[in-house]
Amino acid sequence: MKTLTLEEISRLVDGKLEGDPSVVIKGASGIKEAQEGDITFLANPKYEPLIDGSMASAIIASNAMQRATTKPLIRVENPSLAFSKVVSHMFPDDKKFPKGIHTSAVIGQNVKLGKDVAVGPQAVIEDDVEIGDKTVICAGAFIGHATKIGDATLIYQNVTIREKAQIGSRVIIHSGTVIGSDGFGFTKVNGTYQKIPQTGIVVVEDDVEIGACVAIDRARFGRTLIKRGTKIDNLVQIAHNVIVGENSIIIAQTGISGSSVIGKNVILAGQCGIVGHVEIGDNVIVGAQAGVTKSVPKNTFIVGSPARPHNIAKKIIAAWEKLPQFLKEFAELKEEVKNWKSKKQ
Amino acid sequence: MKTLTLEEISRLVDGKLEGDPSVVIKGASGIKEAQEGDITFLANPKYEPLIDGSMASAIIASNAMQRATTKPLIRVENPSLAFSKVVSHMFPDDKKFPKGIHTSAVIGQNVKLGKDVAVGPQAVIEDDVEIGDKTVICAGAFIGHATKIGDATLIYQNVTIREKAQIGSRVIIHSGTVIGSDGFGFTKVNGTYQKIPQTGIVVVEDDVEIGACVAIDRARFGRTLIKRGTKIDNLVQIAHNVIVGENSIIIAQTGISGSSVIGKNVILAGQCGIVGHVEIGDNVIVGAQAGVTKSVPKNTFIVGSPARPHNIAKKIIAAWEKLPQFLKEFAELKEEVKNWKSKKQ
Amino acid sequence: MKTLTLEEISRLVDGKLEGDPSVVIKGASGIKEAQEGDITFLANPKYEPLIDGSMASAIIASNAMQRATTKPLIRVENPSLAFSKVVSHMFPDDKKFPKGIHTSAVIGQNVKLGKDVAVGPQAVIEDDVEIGDKTVICAGAFIGHATKIGDATLIYQNVTIREKAQIGSRVIIHSGTVIGSDGFGFTKVNGTYQKIPQTGIVVVEDDVEIGACVAIDRARFGRTLIKRGTKIDNLVQIAHNVIVGENSIIIAQTGISGSSVIGKNVILAGQCGIVGHVEIGDNVIVGAQAGVTKSVPKNTFIVGSPARPHNIAKKIIAAWEKLPQFLKEFAELKEEVKNWKSKKQ
Repeated sequence: MKTLTLEEISRLVDGKLEGDPSVVIKGASGIKEAQEGDITFLANPKYEPLIDGSMASAIIASNAMQRATTKPLIRVENPSLAFSKVVSHMFPDDKKFPKGIHTSAVIGQNVKLGKDVAVGPQAVIEDDVEIGDKTVICAGAFIGHATKIGDATLIYQNVTIREKAQIGSRVIIHSGTVIGSDGFGFTKVNGTYQKIPQTGIVVVEDDVEIGACVAIDRARFGRTLIKRGTKIDNLVQIAHNVIVGENSIIIAQTGISGSSVIGKNVILAGQCGIVGHVEIGDNVIVGAQAGVTKSVPKNTFIVGSPARPHNIAKKIIAAWEKLPQFLKEFAELKEEVKNWKSKKQ
Repeated sequence: MKTLTLEEISRLVDGKLEGDPSVVIKGASGIKEAQEGDITFLANPKYEPLIDGSMASAIIASNAMQRATTKPLIRVENPSLAFSKVVSHMFPDDKKFPKGIHTSAVIGQNVKLGKDVAVGPQAVIEDDVEIGDKTVICAGAFIGHATKIGDATLIYQNVTIREKAQIGSRVIIHSGTVIGSDGFGFTKVNGTYQKIPQTGIVVVEDDVEIGACVAIDRARFGRTLIKRGTKIDNLVQIAHNVIVGENSIIIAQTGISGSSVIGKNVILAGQCGIVGHVEIGDNVIVGAQAGVTKSVPKNTFIVGSPARPHNIAKKIIAAWEKLPQFLKEFAELKEEVKNWKSKKQ
Repeated sequence: MKTLTLEEISRLVDGKLEGDPSVVIKGASGIKEAQEGDITFLANPKYEPLIDGSMASAIIASNAMQRATTKPLIRVENPSLAFSKVVSHMFPDDKKFPKGIHTSAVIGQNVKLGKDVAVGPQAVIEDDVEIGDKTVICAGAFIGHATKIGDATLIYQNVTIREKAQIGSRVIIHSGTVIGSDGFGFTKVNGTYQKIPQTGIVVVEDDVEIGACVAIDRARFGRTLIKRGTKIDNLVQIAHNVIVGENSIIIAQTGISGSSVIGKNVILAGQCGIVGHVEIGDNVIVGAQAGVTKSVPKNTFIVGSPARPHNIAKKIIAAWEKLPQFLKEFAELKEEVKNWKSKKQ
């Protein structure tokens, strides 16, 4: 851990300092947890009121932030990114990765390893695998035969990558994840399910990150495809022949059924489910726990199960709240009309 | 990859060819993705309209399909199964499995291995395990003591099978899955939870397939039981003492709570949840994301959370759509009756 | 397996026997599954009617149970706990764990192992790890550098514990689980997501149990914290910087988003989801599949998605049932008022 002055920090993040440049910062923390001596940040305007009660000694804030405060501010375009830089500087990431090929690793025939590839203890690399420069395969990971992995990719401990997968460069795959398990395909013959061969592959393009305990099935034929820059959280299910577009975000415990196509810049919030054979357009946002039963046009925000456009769903949910009272009033009105009619007739 | 003529293909699948037998097929693909030279198939009538726009050079269709087309057809009883045969023939599944016992595998005392058993690198087989003929234990898998596994079973990489499990023949278990972890059983004693011993086992009968990253807990006592022919998708949770009947389908991310009994030929769609201690009858279908809170009689189709019969739930969901408009109209009617009454009185 | 008389059993559980002390018990089973010769138990009053049809030869029941029966009873304060004692006695848990350090395990530099530590085959322990007395690291598990583990802790097969984690004493972590994977943190810069370094750790306090295939992410900075005595079921997602209080219960497939704080004695039922940055008070119960979108005061029972207090949600769900009929009646009433008005005017 290093200490930094506000002057040093504002130079580090290329920010505009409002306050005493000589203040010494000894730690970094969230706005609620921060103690004296800590720097914090404010990315989400909804947390602005927390400034007043925060113990932090300085705040990295957006250029656009308007709230008045007596605390020193460092203003930047992207406070979250700037704070990351400060954290990385103060708490250098001293993660240690394997170097070289560990003697307990098992490497098959005809394996091509690039420069500075590392393979951890107990890892297994089958025949005909190709791995690019500076890629790290951590302890206990399995790389199936004829798989290709790019440069500077990081495969964490106990990951399983089945045969013939194609993994790009600068990809990160977290522990426990399985890439290329068989798609879930069966056909009923005389009352029992017969397996449909799953002879396709999985393709993961450059700069994708995949969380822990994720399952991405291989295609029935052809490929299951995760395009460049997409980020996938933990415990996500991606079925056979799914295509996920560039720079999308798939949050934890979401499931995407077979052959569905997800656009680019899509956000699938936690625990949502997408049925098979549908298309989710670019820039769509799907709310947490939503159940998507049909294709969704681009630039739409849908929520609920079954999922509907957000503005409609919001009204339905508001109406639910009123339902019990409403049923009561309806019974009263019905009675009133009935009584009144019998009186008047 | 092999090319085939339509004549060869129709012979292979025992189908009725309608079109030029000499057409050469170079690939196989889904109806939307197919290119010229590809054969495709049509199993689901709802996709029939896609025939017109498909680039495929031939289609495997059902005997019952009525839509007219200028494309060559091969008619069969089960197009999905026939297409699988063609795919397997054109793209032979050249998956390679371990052969023999790898020198890095660790095999315990008193282990009985059948003929042609293979054990991959870094696998661990504890004492007193029995494994039948032709079974393959892939790299990094763990087989706990006193476990019994049948013939021609396939345990993929990094699977964990805890002690005393009984796994049948022709079973497939995908990577990352855990069989026989302790059931989730605690009892509160003076404000803290005390563990209830989970001394039972897991039994997986013949011809079951279990996806990736599935958790099946051992019984508190007795057994958790998955019966013959059932197929389980990825990331499914099966709690202690659950029984799943024959030839059922459990789709990804479904959870079944302790001691529930699922019938045969049941379909549990994705992300659904079943509470503990209930019975789901034979042939029941549970919709995606449904929450089943009580026992369900056989031959029922239920959906929603809480789950209700499909025909009732459908009406409720349709009614939700009308709710906001309806609340408005109700307020108007109430006002109207009130005004009118005050006028008339 | 041992047989016991009812006299021996009532002494074992310190219970009050009502019936023949010489009856011999040969097995133990659930109230529905029990056969002649079995003892069973009754913890939940809702199962009392099952007594009459049970084949069990004796029942461990609560002191408070009032139902009359001709079967021998052993009355105790906590029937579930007493039954556990009987089961443990009749079916001794003869689980075998590794002893000593297996020759195939890979142990790093500067590792400090307590007395009687066991490390199974193919396990990997990186540099600077400290492990307390009697702790068992099973086959294929990975312990990252600078991790500290307490005494008598049990790390099952193929668990991954990433660097710098702090795991308490008497902790149990089941197979396939990942502790300390990177939090899901990205910030969008010029249209692509840039990774925010996740330099924090995971802390798991004493007496915590964590199921199979669980993912607990390391903090962005600071720590993700699971407090003493909490029990976590399978396939649960716990995001970065989450804090879970003492003696809470998190049931299978639940997800907790980043920075949320869960109180003590909380119960999160299966498949529920908690958004980020909220506080769930002490003693809160969250129903299965609930979607919690905001902070929840202590001692509350909430259900549904979006989650609401149980008593309100119950009325809303009851109202749903009536909706289709109600819409029909409303249309009729509207028509009636309209007709009547036109007649009377």
